Amino acid sequence: MTTSTLPQGVNAQTISLRLGHPDPATLGTPSFQEAVRRVMASPQAAHALAYGNEQGSVDLIAYLVERINREQHLSLGAENVTITAGSTNATDMIARLYTQPGDAVIVEAPTYVDSLHVFRDHGVRLYGVPMDSEGIRSTELESLLKQLASEGINVPLLYTIPNFHNPTGITTSEQRRKAIIELARQYGVLIVEDDVYRDLAFEAAVPPSYLALAGGEHAMQIGSVSKTIAPGLRVGWIATAAEHVQRFVDCGTTQMGGGANPLAAQFVAEYCKAGSWDAHLEDIRHLYSTRRDALLDALSRYMPPEVTWTQPLGGFFVWLTLPEGLNGAAIKRAAAERGVLVASGEGFFTQPQAHPNHLRLTYSFAALEDIGKAVRILGEVVRGN
Amino acid sequence: MTTSTLPQGVNAQTISLRLGHPDPATLGTPSFQEAVRRVMASPQAAHALAYGNEQGSVDLIAYLVERINREQHLSLGAENVTITAGSTNATDMIARLYTQPGDAVIVEAPTYVDSLHVFRDHGVRLYGVPMDSEGIRSTELESLLKQLASEGINVPLLYTIPNFHNPTGITTSEQRRKAIIELARQYGVLIVEDDVYRDLAFEAAVPPSYLALAGGEHAMQIGSVSKTIAPGLRVGWIATAAEHVQRFVDCGTTQMGGGANPLAAQFVAEYCKAGSWDAHLEDIRHLYSTRRDALLDALSRYMPPEVTWTQPLGGFFVWLTLPEGLNGAAIKRAAAERGVLVASGEGFFTQPQAHPNHLRLTYSFAALEDIGKAVRILGEVVRGN
Repeated sequence: MTTSTLPQGVNAQTISLRLGHPDPATLGTPSFQEAVRRVMASPQAAHALAYGNEQGSVDLIAYLVERINREQHLSLGAENVTITAGSTNATDMIARLYTQPGDAVIVEAPTYVDSLHVFRDHGVRLYGVPMDSEGIRSTELESLLKQLASEGINVPLLYTIPNFHNPTGITTSEQRRKAIIELARQYGVLIVEDDVYRDLAFEAAVPPSYLALAGGEHAMQIGSVSKTIAPGLRVGWIATAAEHVQRFVDCGTTQMGGGANPLAAQFVAEYCKAGSWDAHLEDIRHLYSTRRDALLDALSRYMPPEVTWTQPLGGFFVWLTLPEGLNGAAIKRAAAERGVLVASGEGFFTQPQAHPNHLRLTYSFAALEDIGKAVRILGEVVRGN
Repeated sequence: MTTSTLPQGVNAQTISLRLGHPDPATLGTPSFQEAVRRVMASPQAAHALAYGNEQGSVDLIAYLVERINREQHLSLGAENVTITAGSTNATDMIARLYTQPGDAVIVEAPTYVDSLHVFRDHGVRLYGVPMDSEGIRSTELESLLKQLASEGINVPLLYTIPNFHNPTGITTSEQRRKAIIELARQYGVLIVEDDVYRDLAFEAAVPPSYLALAGGEHAMQIGSVSKTIAPGLRVGWIATAAEHVQRFVDCGTTQMGGGANPLAAQFVAEYCKAGSWDAHLEDIRHLYSTRRDALLDALSRYMPPEVTWTQPLGGFFVWLTLPEGLNGAAIKRAAAERGVLVASGEGFFTQPQAHPNHLRLTYSFAALEDIGKAVRILGEVVRGN
């Protein structure tokens, strides 16, 4: 990767523990290049270059249905999966079709900052529910649902990132998922399960998905290849009940533009069907878990004892809680001046000003040999040296 | 193209004058294949596979700015163009960011049915203004704007297809464009100029664009490669004032997903910079104008004298007006039974029931040798034989 290909704000002199991006060196592998060549040389090329099947690439849907059923012990059919232009398009389409301005959408506190932004663009009201080490706290969730019901506020959606959560790295426990499904059923709330990190489990398998626990109903599961194949393809999907898939197929954008990114989706289908994704996942799980270990090790070594952090079992993120009185945004700025980029935590909350003392660190983007150095500098900044 | 690659509802036994799709034989040409190979083999591949620059492929923006300035006598900079995932994403993003539910959006009557659908998904109220051979009738437009103002209804957007309009094939005259800009300025309405057919001018150059006539303000010009390179790429753009481009860059979906379709946009940039688009446009203008001639010739030969139709100077569409009492939807069904697919006109209006006697024919998809046969059959259906 040359300097000119580095994302905005990153240069050869800085170390980024800020970006939740896959390592650029993992993109465009020989097996992916080969998949592109095969698609372009095949009779499918002209098909993939035309307006696509509205539900998305038939080949990719078939692959995903088999994979999801095998991994999640479901029995979905082709009518249960639609291809999207990444998880962004999935989230935006769900917000567009399932909310009205003024509706409430419940999210984790904290949650993925850009999802907050997508929902806000649709004029919904966002309510954050605190998390503990098992995920959203169900007692607080129940109180909120009661309160919103008593105020007559419609709550169409609960948006959650159950595995290796962004920004905290927390995986919601099975018991907690069951409690949340129970509440979602009771209050008629659809669960939007943003599960783009599920293929990056370093240790144990992830708990059963919301979609699986809810028997294919009451949940929309969003997947993506952005974290594990390449974000520049813009390919993702939604697995859910057939009635919802039909609604996505019938909506204006799908009717106008056809299925999502037909050519890119065909590249992905070809790559996956050849077994290349599974082989690549082995490689990058090793790559990222080694970096995770290095980051956690460096945090133990360099952080003052009053700082705490999460222990992610996969994904890209570690969440730091600074002692009261320390300001994440100030730490972020001071670290940036010393060449270390991190995200401060307040923007991940619906009420930023109430949560000034967090940082989010990523281990997906920085080189292994830079992680220790970056955390040492960050530790010095936190100590005020 | 094998039967398995034909769009839904089309088979080897039918002739489609219904689809507004480019001819599948024009997709995936050797020069496009070559552009894909060059991108994948270059150091830009890893960059194009990563999260993209939020405004879109820098190379494609640079190409488009130069082209738009040259062709439209504008002096745009890079800050005036953003890449989108086709015109669909452009229309949806404009609707999302520039309208509130209950707002009025003014459209041509008739207009592109799928744009109506995209706007409706955002809860806006659609008002159609009748067209004549020069485009939207400005006196009716002025009356409507006055009426909506008196009712206190906000009118953020006027959506128009100025060149080779879908479904009528009409090109709005320069004089009419100037009158409409005047009204748009007076009432504070932004003009959304859906100009995806402008590169398919068979005879004279198209009139000056709204964007050019309005000096780069008061208009958002939507472009796309879907009609002239390949719809399966999902690459389009918006050219407009920098403040609007900034709003697209800052919105939730762009912040979450990065710029639109980085890999596909890089394929397009490579293809265009090599001069391949211009060469291809020469070829397909000839292809489609020959078919247009065949269709118009066949209409003259086979339609009863009480049927009238438009004379498009480019694009894909001819609009038929049937005598009062004949029903377009019934004609469509009867023609389909005899293997000829056409679109009936009512769905292109905001008030379908008031416009039962139109058909839209396309000449982009059917083979030249099938067009005469299809129109002969359609003529027999219209005559009730």
